[in-house]
Amino acid sequence: MTIHEQVLEPASRARLREDAVTLAHGSGGRATRGLIDAVFKEAFGNPFLDRLDDSARFAVNGADLAFTTDSFVVSPLFFPGGDIGDLAVNGTVNNLAVSGATPLHLSAGFILEEGFPIASLRRITESMHIAAEAAGVDIATGDTKVVQRGKADGCYINTSGVGVVHSPPTGEIRAGDAVLVTGPIGEHGVAVMLARGDLETDTASDTAPLNCLLADLASRCPGAVRRMRDATRGGVATVLNGLAADADLAVVLDEDAIPVRPAVRHACELLGIDPLHAACEGRAVVVVAPESSSAALAALRGHPLGTDAAVIGHVQDDPPGTVLLRSASGTTRTLDPLAGAPHPRIC
Amino acid sequence: MTIHEQVLEPASRARLREDAVTLAHGSGGRATRGLIDAVFKEAFGNPFLDRLDDSARFAVNGADLAFTTDSFVVSPLFFPGGDIGDLAVNGTVNNLAVSGATPLHLSAGFILEEGFPIASLRRITESMHIAAEAAGVDIATGDTKVVQRGKADGCYINTSGVGVVHSPPTGEIRAGDAVLVTGPIGEHGVAVMLARGDLETDTASDTAPLNCLLADLASRCPGAVRRMRDATRGGVATVLNGLAADADLAVVLDEDAIPVRPAVRHACELLGIDPLHAACEGRAVVVVAPESSSAALAALRGHPLGTDAAVIGHVQDDPPGTVLLRSASGTTRTLDPLAGAPHPRIC
Repeated sequence: MTIHEQVLEPASRARLREDAVTLAHGSGGRATRGLIDAVFKEAFGNPFLDRLDDSARFAVNGADLAFTTDSFVVSPLFFPGGDIGDLAVNGTVNNLAVSGATPLHLSAGFILEEGFPIASLRRITESMHIAAEAAGVDIATGDTKVVQRGKADGCYINTSGVGVVHSPPTGEIRAGDAVLVTGPIGEHGVAVMLARGDLETDTASDTAPLNCLLADLASRCPGAVRRMRDATRGGVATVLNGLAADADLAVVLDEDAIPVRPAVRHACELLGIDPLHAACEGRAVVVVAPESSSAALAALRGHPLGTDAAVIGHVQDDPPGTVLLRSASGTTRTLDPLAGAPHPRIC
Repeated sequence: MTIHEQVLEPASRARLREDAVTLAHGSGGRATRGLIDAVFKEAFGNPFLDRLDDSARFAVNGADLAFTTDSFVVSPLFFPGGDIGDLAVNGTVNNLAVSGATPLHLSAGFILEEGFPIASLRRITESMHIAAEAAGVDIATGDTKVVQRGKADGCYINTSGVGVVHSPPTGEIRAGDAVLVTGPIGEHGVAVMLARGDLETDTASDTAPLNCLLADLASRCPGAVRRMRDATRGGVATVLNGLAADADLAVVLDEDAIPVRPAVRHACELLGIDPLHAACEGRAVVVVAPESSSAALAALRGHPLGTDAAVIGHVQDDPPGTVLLRSASGTTRTLDPLAGAPHPRIC
């Protein structure tokens, strides 16, 4: 686009370079954000959506509620450590949990391809049932649609969820805040990518419900949590870039402090990806007040899903909107959000 | 299945004849109900889901809430009178409305096929925006996934919605109750089927938000409404069969009283379908107490979306679980729910 064209472009319409949807638009990285800004916020813009939080939050007759939605198109449907069913339950539970909400009720909308085996569907719904019980939620309402052969890929699931907000993060990140992760990163993304190639792997998805872990944290460190995000598509790097941009502050990570299991590190080298860009489905990034860093770490480590939690960095003023990665040898590089679509259909 | 096998079948597992998903499982008729009973209720069974209402209803901190979900896979995406976008908004608004709830917030989950034109996506999201404004709701949270070419059919949308229950139907249908429909039937189904064949048609989808119409009815006839359903997949016949089965009573329809526009009747003859099996997306079936029949009809007709409302029949004791259709000449036949899959991907 020339400068002249840029001037003519109406200021109210966000620009999008592409004429058609690409896989990158579904990656959870920069292209996804571009599509959201140019199409969805443009059409639907309202105070709830514009925050682009994991959940919308609103009050009804005095009840403080969170509401979220997520569609799941993971391929393959079954992978080490989980399947599309528990992923769909945990993903929506976690969207509510990082909003400081207790998940109450989920919906499940299925889009099935003609010919999909009933036995596979039973396996998936059984996974959903077990995951829902583990998270203390129920699947209260649902819908099923069927499309012709070749118009889907077996089974897609949307889950939406309603929760009641008990201890919302304060929302405002400040210089000096500590950045924690609740466990080793990248396991889900690596497990799914290896499952596609039928490669041998010791890595299983980390899919898990974070609501109890994060509720424990909130009750043991009241008022300390600034923001929480589950590090799904685009991984920890993309989530932290989002937090840095929102706060107009810098996040500085200590590379050595970031928990990555050796098998994940090895697989990432084989796959040519950065574990910081690989999706987690049972890990949250948590930003807490500086004075609460140790207490928050202890609270997380005291829960079975947080035993390997770590403080991985801190927030500082400059350079604003940036994530920096500091190596043991003292070199520092900028850590970008996921760009392009190296990881399609991870969740 | 032999009697011997039937005896061996565990009583707790609902039987399903098919090994694989068929288009009929998505029709909204008998096969859909079979899949729900055998797979989804089997796995997820809980008091909310087991009611199989249009919405789940629950209280949070004293607020009486309704929560619903629907996925939309209509083909073609654009048809006379609407598109997948306003259909997705109105469908979820109507699920809440027939539960006696005021719809508040919707979610939107998109599954997009790689290569889908951004211009089409903008057209759809603009439709959603206009429909949401018309219904007085917002799209408060969303999600976008992208799948490879050939793994979807352009665009699928899930909407879920949360509403606050203001005037729930009493729920209990009794002999003598009047059965009303809020307008001419079958228009959506016929419009979509004709659009597939590129046939000339004067018929446009009836897609519309029913929340104001049904709230008017509730306020003008307090306590009179026994049950309401929007007559989507499977049409009025399938919805009434569900109501008759739930109540273990009979519904008797006067064929001549059922509003069907001539163009729809003509198209149904061409297509070889019964208008009572064709989907509506802006019509509800309403069962009211006998003494409120006239007041309910007047209330509906007083609203722009109910000007052609009609009393189409009544409830009686026998034969339980059955819908009967009485012609002008006095003959009576049983009206079955939709069976098979003559109308795939209507919504």
